[in-house]
Amino acid sequence: MTEVEVKKAQESLQDRLAQVVELLQRQRMVEDLTHRQEGAHNDLVENLVHRQNLVELQRKLDDLHPADIAYILEALPLEDRLTVWQLVRSERDGDILLEVSDSVRQSLIADMDDHELLAAAKEMDADELADLAPELPRDVVHELMETLDAQQRERVRSALSYDEEQVGALMDFEMVTIREDVSLEVVLRYLRRLKELPNHTDKLFVVDYDGILKGVLPIKRLLVNDPEKKVAEVMATDPVSFQPEEDAYDAAQAFERYDLVSAPVVDKSERLIGRLTIDEMVDLIREESESEVLNMAGLREEEDIFASVWRSFRNRWAWLAINLITAFVASRVIGLFEGSIEKLVALAALMPIVAGIGGNSGNQTITMIVRAMALDQVSPGNTSRLMRKELAVSLINGLVWGGVIGAVAFWLYGSWSLGVVMTAAMTLNLLLAALMGVLIPMTLARLGRDPAMGASVMITAVTDSGGFFIFLGLATLFLL
Amino acid sequence: MTEVEVKKAQESLQDRLAQVVELLQRQRMVEDLTHRQEGAHNDLVENLVHRQNLVELQRKLDDLHPADIAYILEALPLEDRLTVWQLVRSERDGDILLEVSDSVRQSLIADMDDHELLAAAKEMDADELADLAPELPRDVVHELMETLDAQQRERVRSALSYDEEQVGALMDFEMVTIREDVSLEVVLRYLRRLKELPNHTDKLFVVDYDGILKGVLPIKRLLVNDPEKKVAEVMATDPVSFQPEEDAYDAAQAFERYDLVSAPVVDKSERLIGRLTIDEMVDLIREESESEVLNMAGLREEEDIFASVWRSFRNRWAWLAINLITAFVASRVIGLFEGSIEKLVALAALMPIVAGIGGNSGNQTITMIVRAMALDQVSPGNTSRLMRKELAVSLINGLVWGGVIGAVAFWLYGSWSLGVVMTAAMTLNLLLAALMGVLIPMTLARLGRDPAMGASVMITAVTDSGGFFIFLGLATLFLL
Repeated sequence: MTEVEVKKAQESLQDRLAQVVELLQRQRMVEDLTHRQEGAHNDLVENLVHRQNLVELQRKLDDLHPADIAYILEALPLEDRLTVWQLVRSERDGDILLEVSDSVRQSLIADMDDHELLAAAKEMDADELADLAPELPRDVVHELMETLDAQQRERVRSALSYDEEQVGALMDFEMVTIREDVSLEVVLRYLRRLKELPNHTDKLFVVDYDGILKGVLPIKRLLVNDPEKKVAEVMATDPVSFQPEEDAYDAAQAFERYDLVSAPVVDKSERLIGRLTIDEMVDLIREESESEVLNMAGLREEEDIFASVWRSFRNRWAWLAINLITAFVASRVIGLFEGSIEKLVALAALMPIVAGIGGNSGNQTITMIVRAMALDQVSPGNTSRLMRKELAVSLINGLVWGGVIGAVAFWLYGSWSLGVVMTAAMTLNLLLAALMGVLIPMTLARLGRDPAMGASVMITAVTDSGGFFIFLGLATLFLL
Repeated sequence: MTEVEVKKAQESLQDRLAQVVELLQRQRMVEDLTHRQEGAHNDLVENLVHRQNLVELQRKLDDLHPADIAYILEALPLEDRLTVWQLVRSERDGDILLEVSDSVRQSLIADMDDHELLAAAKEMDADELADLAPELPRDVVHELMETLDAQQRERVRSALSYDEEQVGALMDFEMVTIREDVSLEVVLRYLRRLKELPNHTDKLFVVDYDGILKGVLPIKRLLVNDPEKKVAEVMATDPVSFQPEEDAYDAAQAFERYDLVSAPVVDKSERLIGRLTIDEMVDLIREESESEVLNMAGLREEEDIFASVWRSFRNRWAWLAINLITAFVASRVIGLFEGSIEKLVALAALMPIVAGIGGNSGNQTITMIVRAMALDQVSPGNTSRLMRKELAVSLINGLVWGGVIGAVAFWLYGSWSLGVVMTAAMTLNLLLAALMGVLIPMTLARLGRDPAMGASVMITAVTDSGGFFIFLGLATLFLL
């Protein structure tokens, strides 16, 4: 896709959004008027104003970077979003589709006919096509593939064959390759013959006649070294490279750790097949952190904030249903002790404190562990040490805050034994929270699941049922 | 700081960590033995094995990239961490200190004497010194500043004068500047005279004699254009630039949106004063998402997973104390209805379900809103629409899941009126959760606070107290 010059961002994005929203509102007002006064004499005037508004809006959009238009589309409710989308010049459709989030992309694609889709896709590179293909109608994809040459088609196929979370799905094919036996002068002349270099070209890939990667020539070295030198003398022979089957998130971490801008992707026989660039990695890092937040809260996927009520319901119902079951279990635990509560109704008022603090503390532990696991800092070698530390923190918290609340219980209900039971139950539940806060994400990881997956719902389930059982059980044993 | 060649990452980081841990364990075993058999004849042998082990460990460390050593240090408990730290060659100390997280950095600095600190800091650039300075002992900083030349000292001062969250604190000063009236050929020759180019140099900065930024010359253009051309003909005159007072996170979003690798920082009169690079921005993006996760869970800051129990306690106690207060309030709400519970003990068993589902649903809403706010997608213009949508989703969830649990309540306790109260309470509490899930982060933002700050604790507080009040209130009105 062609490179887009970035205009100076003097006005903030928020301002730009506000301007677009204002124009949209003005236009809607005009439309309302036209509608109400149907058949009236001023149709022509209204129409004129209407058209003027649209022209102004269109001019505004033409000035914006595709990424900014994408941002505006994301922030608009569906109806306004489609109005703006129709005003975007069709040659920019492709760039923008590649920038928006999956859910917004779907809403835009649904609004386009096959002809428009084909036009938008025609200027895309193979890796971009592969990104978009799963969301396009089948016949459009079919027609698109026929317009590609054999190499491009092969690349799209190969990119599509990898899982979304593999390096192969994120690589592009815009590589500049050179031979190791030429001089830097020759390389410089070769580059000058190219009309432009791919984005994020911070190194050239050195390959032999079979396409095997021999090294990389950082542009920095190309620029500071004597042009008479040979590529082989100057290149780095042992660059960080990736294989298409590798986990993309691991690659992103390597980019972050080694401050890479681009890196070669090679197959098992070291043949160069593509490259990764920092922009894709940044997107991935953001998406990963986001999905961690969302998963912990029990949302299935990122939600377009203006998704229909029905879509939002579907995104959220699963975890709510699971939560309903865990809440029901907790309720049945309380049911076991209805006799005790009848005798000492204070128990009903105090039990949610034990459960609640346990949940809060468990969430702190589990958040920290999930975080450390995402950064690969937890290994079998240090699990028991981690566990001991979490248990120790919980013990202190239990004695301190359990003590406080025990004193409060004594003050409220005048029974010191109730206070002691309260303190003991709180301490035990916090220990349970620490134990499960470490075990739940580790077990999920061992089962090959995402450790953040509903972590919050699960730990809360444990500390609720556990808390009620511990507190009511102790009370039944010692107070009645 | 000197550029470090990245070694091919054939073995995963986890493997490397495992190797280091194994060597450490072996060494500790030997130490134990030596200790127990003190005065025995084989002291010499033990000592030899011991030293051999250390040498092997040191060789391993010498092969690793500073970022990888940083990773290993983060994953080790304090005692092992310091053993490894002492084995690291002192000339690499600086690089590694810049890579580790704040809390680990503190533990390493505490282990170094002034002499070692000075040596480590001596090779750093001004921006790196500024990063480190706040954590160094005062006299070390003082001594360091005296070794710097006037320009460097000025730069360190200026970097230190900005808030951690401003562009000025993240910029570096490694800029290659050129004039607009020279030819590309001259630029190429000029670059060749430099020994090396700064990392992440994807563009050169074009300034006039007063240091005013006139444009940028992307390296890509330098390479593909005719060397006879003048810089002014080829440069981009309207680049994205930042001011040192700007919010660093906004800059990071601009880097992400416009796929930048580096960008100039200018003062109010457009004078070039520094540059931002993608590596700093990536770190920032990660830190921001992390602090969002941590803040929502009520952890004050990122915790070194091997922090002392005492540090962890301090990091967590504040939110637990707040939670204790909110739990106490919820408990008092129940206390209001102790009479009702005494008459109908089923209420005690059912009330946590109403509160729990409300909390779960509220957390889903608040997570989504906090996310959208971080991406600047929420504006006063769309608040009411968002609110309506969230309320609609909650209404559906309330009727569906409230209906289910109402049916279960009827089945358990044989009272259809109890079932109806349950359904009604659940629906009302979910509506409350949606309302507060939107209002809490928006209010926090309006007060200039981080909208993620303890969001989870607050929404849970509302849905607990609210849920108990609604359910027990309705039950008292209609069932007793």
